[in-house]
Amino acid sequence: MIRKLAIIGVGLIGGSMARALREEGVVQEIVGCGRSKPNLERAVELGVIDHYTHDIGEAVRGADLIVLAVPLGAMEATFRAMQDHLADDAVITDVGSVKGSVVEDAVKVFGEAPAFLVPGHPIAGTERSGVEASFPELFRNRRVILTPLDNTDPQALQKVEQAWRHCGADLSYMAVAHHDEVLAATSHLPHMLAYSLVDSLARMKENDEIFRYAAGGFRDFTRIASSNPVMWRDICLANREALGGMLKRFADELHGMADALEKDDAEGLLEIFERAKAARDRYIDGVE
Amino acid sequence: MIRKLAIIGVGLIGGSMARALREEGVVQEIVGCGRSKPNLERAVELGVIDHYTHDIGEAVRGADLIVLAVPLGAMEATFRAMQDHLADDAVITDVGSVKGSVVEDAVKVFGEAPAFLVPGHPIAGTERSGVEASFPELFRNRRVILTPLDNTDPQALQKVEQAWRHCGADLSYMAVAHHDEVLAATSHLPHMLAYSLVDSLARMKENDEIFRYAAGGFRDFTRIASSNPVMWRDICLANREALGGMLKRFADELHGMADALEKDDAEGLLEIFERAKAARDRYIDGVE
Repeated sequence: MIRKLAIIGVGLIGGSMARALREEGVVQEIVGCGRSKPNLERAVELGVIDHYTHDIGEAVRGADLIVLAVPLGAMEATFRAMQDHLADDAVITDVGSVKGSVVEDAVKVFGEAPAFLVPGHPIAGTERSGVEASFPELFRNRRVILTPLDNTDPQALQKVEQAWRHCGADLSYMAVAHHDEVLAATSHLPHMLAYSLVDSLARMKENDEIFRYAAGGFRDFTRIASSNPVMWRDICLANREALGGMLKRFADELHGMADALEKDDAEGLLEIFERAKAARDRYIDGVE
Repeated sequence: MIRKLAIIGVGLIGGSMARALREEGVVQEIVGCGRSKPNLERAVELGVIDHYTHDIGEAVRGADLIVLAVPLGAMEATFRAMQDHLADDAVITDVGSVKGSVVEDAVKVFGEAPAFLVPGHPIAGTERSGVEASFPELFRNRRVILTPLDNTDPQALQKVEQAWRHCGADLSYMAVAHHDEVLAATSHLPHMLAYSLVDSLARMKENDEIFRYAAGGFRDFTRIASSNPVMWRDICLANREALGGMLKRFADELHGMADALEKDDAEGLLEIFERAKAARDRYIDGVE
């Protein structure tokens, strides 16, 4: 049983977690914390949280589970604001898409990675945001990656594991750096590509016409470019080392593709396309 | 009324067009032509075509409307095979995703662009293929771009327009080269990116794990990499001039993004992401 759950950032992820735990009846009190008063008031109206405050210190006071669902760029300040107000049994987890930067931010504030911090990342979401978009089933049968450190308190880990299990999530475990490499490949790089492509088309002279003739494939391909720009700026910067390398390697591959086109290399292109189709059909279609 | 409709290539597009025209009751006889006997037999069973032949010359004999729904790489050979068997009132249209190469192929065979050729391109499709995937509503409210030439016979154009209207399509008109530029941007480049990305991830050491942690955004982003590789090899090569240039420019943009990451250029990234989101939400979401 969670005595007091503090959700810092009551948006899609934080709100959905609160809803799921409430539905399971495993939490006594839920406090929401954030900057937008209308969003927090709506969260109370919707029954997602019991009450709210704009003050992080007040939110975490007496809380035994604290969920940080703020943009990565706000993590350090959030740690700092709560640092002197934590209960003795407080456990902190987060839902950030990059784990290395969260651990670094915690080290900056606490001097070392705190034993009560369990970095986490639910692989779930939609391109919508805000508490209105939240729903209790968001994490059901979705993966949540936890990246505990060597010094993480086993009881803290267990508390976070239990909370995610109540949300219906499948737990996975990774080292921090490995998580950031894997997510750079499957999530952060695709977002960079989608944003770049849409932006470069939007800057073309006849962009009106170009978008008018876009088909369903283009809509799917660019859906992630409708994601929250601030959140994604923070993610890309927080994971800039892994992501920057991949971005450059991929740019070089595209130059290779352009060369293949120029040389009329039908076999080379077909090989790439066939390998890609086989990989996608094998790995992805099974879960669609 | 269409006396005899010859569908060369009875797949998703050719099959759906036959079904739509049949449903409208505007065609007396439909002959299918292709190489795969099981596919053609299935097309007869499904009532998509009345009968079939593997011989293009036989298929077009007496046909007043001929639809070329073969891969772009097969266009020239297809024109050649039908050239001596066309009826006096034969009208040819095609459904290729590149229009310049189709016109060039026709010129190679007929000496000049034939007045009875109306190049066309329906902006419709799914990543599935084959006659099994075809359905009569595929083109309903979808755009079909026609790129008639200066010497195109107005009556031939009218015949093709009528057929598409019976399929429920919205007709648009473009110059050949302009079509190929617009489609390179919205369709051919995204396919190249999706194929390249999936292939480069599949070639990574831990590709199993990488795909396992891919989320919904990645599935949408890479859906087009499940498209037919032969068809797309042909499209990319057929449009290599417009596409190659765009590919290189885009690769350079990605290097610019990598630089922005390295320099921690938060403002620059946010600007790109915000512009992209605004463009996508404005142009695309309206039609989702």
